[in-house]
Amino acid sequence: MSEPPLTFSGSPAILIERLIAVVGEDHCLSRPEELFTYGCDGLTLDAHRPSVVVLPKSSQEVAAAVAICRELGCPFVPRGAGTGLSGGATPLFGAVVICCSRMGEILEIDAENRIAVVQPGVVNAHLSRAVADLGLFYAPDPSSQQACTIGGNVAENSGGPHTLKYGTTTNHVLAVEMVLPDASTVRLGSPTGFSPGYDLVGAVVGSEGTLGIVTEITVRLMAIPEAVETILAIFDDVPSACRLVGGIIRSGMVPAALEVVDQRTIRAVEASVYAAGLPTEAGAVLIIELDGAACEMEGQLARIRALAENEGVRDLRIAENAEERTLFWRARKGAFGAMGRLAPDLYVHDAVVPRASLPEVLEEICAIGDRYSLKLSNVFHAGDGNLHPNISFDRRDPDELARVLAAGREMLELCVRVGGVLTGEHGVGTEKRDYMGMLFSPDDLDAMRRLRDAFNPDGLCNPGKLIPTTRACMESNPKARGYDEVPLE
Amino acid sequence: MSEPPLTFSGSPAILIERLIAVVGEDHCLSRPEELFTYGCDGLTLDAHRPSVVVLPKSSQEVAAAVAICRELGCPFVPRGAGTGLSGGATPLFGAVVICCSRMGEILEIDAENRIAVVQPGVVNAHLSRAVADLGLFYAPDPSSQQACTIGGNVAENSGGPHTLKYGTTTNHVLAVEMVLPDASTVRLGSPTGFSPGYDLVGAVVGSEGTLGIVTEITVRLMAIPEAVETILAIFDDVPSACRLVGGIIRSGMVPAALEVVDQRTIRAVEASVYAAGLPTEAGAVLIIELDGAACEMEGQLARIRALAENEGVRDLRIAENAEERTLFWRARKGAFGAMGRLAPDLYVHDAVVPRASLPEVLEEICAIGDRYSLKLSNVFHAGDGNLHPNISFDRRDPDELARVLAAGREMLELCVRVGGVLTGEHGVGTEKRDYMGMLFSPDDLDAMRRLRDAFNPDGLCNPGKLIPTTRACMESNPKARGYDEVPLE
Repeated sequence: MSEPPLTFSGSPAILIERLIAVVGEDHCLSRPEELFTYGCDGLTLDAHRPSVVVLPKSSQEVAAAVAICRELGCPFVPRGAGTGLSGGATPLFGAVVICCSRMGEILEIDAENRIAVVQPGVVNAHLSRAVADLGLFYAPDPSSQQACTIGGNVAENSGGPHTLKYGTTTNHVLAVEMVLPDASTVRLGSPTGFSPGYDLVGAVVGSEGTLGIVTEITVRLMAIPEAVETILAIFDDVPSACRLVGGIIRSGMVPAALEVVDQRTIRAVEASVYAAGLPTEAGAVLIIELDGAACEMEGQLARIRALAENEGVRDLRIAENAEERTLFWRARKGAFGAMGRLAPDLYVHDAVVPRASLPEVLEEICAIGDRYSLKLSNVFHAGDGNLHPNISFDRRDPDELARVLAAGREMLELCVRVGGVLTGEHGVGTEKRDYMGMLFSPDDLDAMRRLRDAFNPDGLCNPGKLIPTTRACMESNPKARGYDEVPLE
Repeated sequence: MSEPPLTFSGSPAILIERLIAVVGEDHCLSRPEELFTYGCDGLTLDAHRPSVVVLPKSSQEVAAAVAICRELGCPFVPRGAGTGLSGGATPLFGAVVICCSRMGEILEIDAENRIAVVQPGVVNAHLSRAVADLGLFYAPDPSSQQACTIGGNVAENSGGPHTLKYGTTTNHVLAVEMVLPDASTVRLGSPTGFSPGYDLVGAVVGSEGTLGIVTEITVRLMAIPEAVETILAIFDDVPSACRLVGGIIRSGMVPAALEVVDQRTIRAVEASVYAAGLPTEAGAVLIIELDGAACEMEGQLARIRALAENEGVRDLRIAENAEERTLFWRARKGAFGAMGRLAPDLYVHDAVVPRASLPEVLEEICAIGDRYSLKLSNVFHAGDGNLHPNISFDRRDPDELARVLAAGREMLELCVRVGGVLTGEHGVGTEKRDYMGMLFSPDDLDAMRRLRDAFNPDGLCNPGKLIPTTRACMESNPKARGYDEVPLE
């Protein structure tokens, strides 16, 4: 089994000169102030300086850049928009960042077969906008969809509020073109949705940039549903909202989304530019979105009203038009931005528990936050059991930072204990790499390592991510989590 | 890259003695008449005698059997019900067959979280029957569902008529327990449907038993739809039926199934015990199944009637009740059985083409059948573009057999030429192994080989399947296809 390589120790001057020959001087960044931006993704706690950043324009340029990195023995890391939350795009070991943001073209839209072919740098929300006139949309909708790229979504297998009905990115990717760590280019999958042989597209989606760099993606498009209803159910507390989620799913309905927003989040949102008119004294709001045939809506709304009344709902508001629907969603999609009001730093956790255990788990998570005296808020994909406990803090206070990390670990242990998993949609990256032993046996981790080594045998492609590097790391020693390797400044 | 091992040359007596110690004498078969049944799956053209057949009862027994095979250097092959059509369960190189049919328990049904945990030997149709009272069903429904096992479905990523709306097996498997070729046992995926790290469940589903032996499967259950409508649209010819398929999909509807049955199939069915009252002078029948909310049905039926009239439909029959629905489906599900009336042997082909090209491709496929003077019939998943050209023949006529193989190859070349793929749901196995070069580049095949070698480095687990063994095989020399290795008498 390969261990990650040592930090790049070759000549940066030669590396830069060779890469400039491929992408041109304007698209090869090496000044410290340019490199700063690329030192981390949304997991800003963990930043490292890259050797160089290149911005290729084509698959051929990506392959040429990878070939140079291999030849000179320098690690490399693919990057999209850098909105990831688990450190997937963070350049460890002095890696070269290969940033695909200039590869932003929609190459083909085929309405009859309901597919689109895109470059990895296409922004998620732009694709749905481009196909809206055809009555189609691209279903995965991460909260960062106005900024994040489809290439990054493929790396992280991103989900979003509508995962409940529509699944995550892996359910929507039919084929990819990919530059492997040996600089060869392969095409995996098929636009027909059927592909003989191993499901390598399945293995690549969610591999967090450790198996190669995806340079073209064929995605499935969906028909825009005939009708959409968006409902706010306002509750006195989070467990009641969670119980309604269980009741709706048990009833057989599959809403497009079931999202819980707790009181602290409501208050932050209402004090911010995202204000949506939510009652700031409410304990929790459940956003319910239904979509489907227009004739189904009335009956489903009536069933939801009855179920909500059973759980003691305080108020039920139904969006009357598209503007009001957008307003309801602002409370959810603007939540992370609004939390900037609570403290300078935000740690967005991500874990999944069996849906039935949500009420107890949420109470326990709040108790952990209180025990560590932390500012905890919860906004989450309740229909999937996908939690996002968010901790607002100030990293300049070392004691608070230590409490943030310790509480996060306890929350993950709790989720795993009730039969859940470490991450739903943010990935493992550096953030949870050394927690993988909580969930997986050494044999399970060896199976992952074998898959990685099959594609990335010398470990140059996005090293230090996803899999603990040694058994010792599995003890989850925080010092081994990469925070103090090659620090930025 | 590993090449498959040589034929097992150790002592069968020691192998048998060791395996009996694990599974008991009653569950270890070694007499020639016992072995005969296990010489092939549904691809009966290609049969080979196994060294031994073991029928373990538990995951521990599977692991112990694998450990013995490794120790003695004997290849091994997992098997379910043996209904596969591409040779996936065929024991090449004197392999031990590890048949999971005794591992047939449904271990858990969790209605709240909508999952079931099953052993691999559970028969596909039995699971839906077991959860029907809870208002749930298991969606993948291969034509062989009364016999085939869920373990076999996982190996082949089986589809079925309802793939159009519900996807194939890979869309319904959340987690597996698996004995790897090194005899270790791993658990992949999570019942929550989210799993950190590589999507190894995705890589395992459809790997045709070459990555290990799945010993427990957690599947997703679906809510039985409120309403179902089944319609027979009767046409003068196959291309008109295919054009209606295109029209329905373009209209934005996603029916549960869209299945075409051609005239030769109709006549065989009507002459058989599966007779369903279809008009034997019709050129083609399209079975359309709609499911969803009861209130949607009337509007969708009206739209389908209008679209069908546009394509010159001769008659449209709507099933009035569950009995009539079953009768309509008998024509489809009994088709392969009924073809026993046409000739002693049947070659069921399987390929996928872009839906829009169906009318032209079908005409060309019929022309190929005529050119080779073959009895060709077509019954297929038109909504998916998944063709099943069926050739009825007599293997005792060597000239006819040669024409069957040559015509099949031409049909596959045609499908690949129009942007299709080699197989939709039957797998590659031995059948299409040496055709993989038609679709994939040497680099693409190397990527698959690397994945296989990561799990199965010495090639003992189901050798000789899925990937061409040498570049020479990619020339698709029929002599290299395994038909004449270790022949069964």
